[in-house]
Amino acid sequence: MTKLAYRFRDPSLGQLALTHRSVGKPNNERMEFLGDALLGVVVAELLYEAHPHASEGELSRLRAQLVNGQALAVIARELELGDELKLGSGELKSGGFRRESILADAFEALVAAVYLDAGFAECRAVVRALFEPLVAAIPRSSKDAKTRLQELLQARGWSLPHYDLIDSHGEDHAKTFDVSCDISEPEAIRAEGRGSSRRAAEQDAAEAVLRRLQDLKA
Amino acid sequence: MTKLAYRFRDPSLGQLALTHRSVGKPNNERMEFLGDALLGVVVAELLYEAHPHASEGELSRLRAQLVNGQALAVIARELELGDELKLGSGELKSGGFRRESILADAFEALVAAVYLDAGFAECRAVVRALFEPLVAAIPRSSKDAKTRLQELLQARGWSLPHYDLIDSHGEDHAKTFDVSCDISEPEAIRAEGRGSSRRAAEQDAAEAVLRRLQDLKA
Repeated sequence: MTKLAYRFRDPSLGQLALTHRSVGKPNNERMEFLGDALLGVVVAELLYEAHPHASEGELSRLRAQLVNGQALAVIARELELGDELKLGSGELKSGGFRRESILADAFEALVAAVYLDAGFAECRAVVRALFEPLVAAIPRSSKDAKTRLQELLQARGWSLPHYDLIDSHGEDHAKTFDVSCDISEPEAIRAEGRGSSRRAAEQDAAEAVLRRLQDLKA
Repeated sequence: MTKLAYRFRDPSLGQLALTHRSVGKPNNERMEFLGDALLGVVVAELLYEAHPHASEGELSRLRAQLVNGQALAVIARELELGDELKLGSGELKSGGFRRESILADAFEALVAAVYLDAGFAECRAVVRALFEPLVAAIPRSSKDAKTRLQELLQARGWSLPHYDLIDSHGEDHAKTFDVSCDISEPEAIRAEGRGSSRRAAEQDAAEAVLRRLQDLKA
């Protein structure tokens, strides 16, 4: 059913999610209420992680860009929800399966249906898979890796990173520096970086630790 | 720490949640963004379960009653968050620990801290324990949609609704009825309903008109 990467244990939940109120009752309206809230929290978390220095206001603004009727209708079309919608005869005739609001509502309801079918972890995974590319497409702020790593650790209340010069080699005018970056929380992670200055090597090492932290969460 | 029925594995998360921005950075503002979304979904689910016949509009209205600055500050006071708040010296002198918005924000941030510390299931359990009594205290709307519509129109002194049978189809034992509901004030609204009895179809149509009236107000 649809291109959603999820198979319902209880297929009737998925069907209800795609049943517009023009069909009568029961329909997907109540699920839509729950799905809207679920989308809100999963996308909030994605942004919270991806933009560790964004203020609350910026995070809200970014979420509103990603979670609105128009954006959700785009996702609904990619999932080909229109083909599976159950509509009353009036909406069918007037092409309701193409209408943005009907598609967006059905997508929200489908998110709730996954939650009701399998719980939060599954629902979160489905929503993250759909929104991660969109979140990644938001331009990162220009802060450097050391700053981003420090702010991310501070935001969680974790210990700050420790940088050490391991080695430097080469002629004075073309020296290369090897630096390690260690963090102890949420677990011990050590990465090394290299650069033409000590500072550049530290940035490189910080970037590597940020990547490892991302992988931990995945 | 506080009367919250939760013990942090990483106590620094709980402390950060209670750190107001007047202290500097890091503070609880970003957590508040995440906590607001988490509260939204957990209370949405509670209402979804407790009010199986409530429309999407009613569910939204009920949630707004339970999740707003004033209501959250009441919970924050019950949890005695004020005693644990970290405030900058200016806010301390002016009694910021008693201020509603600061308390409500800290409570939201604390909800996010539980999520970051232990995941959704724990966070949901903590929030449900706090909100279940409040949800239970909401009077069940025992009134059906036709009654509610009639009372709403009467209260404003507007003309009463008019119901018409549009169509019925299907075998005798599985008939479907289509009914219209018209009101003329505050403006002409017509909605259609469907059900397995004429009365059920009228309820459905009345519900749709109530929704349209809600939308008018929004």
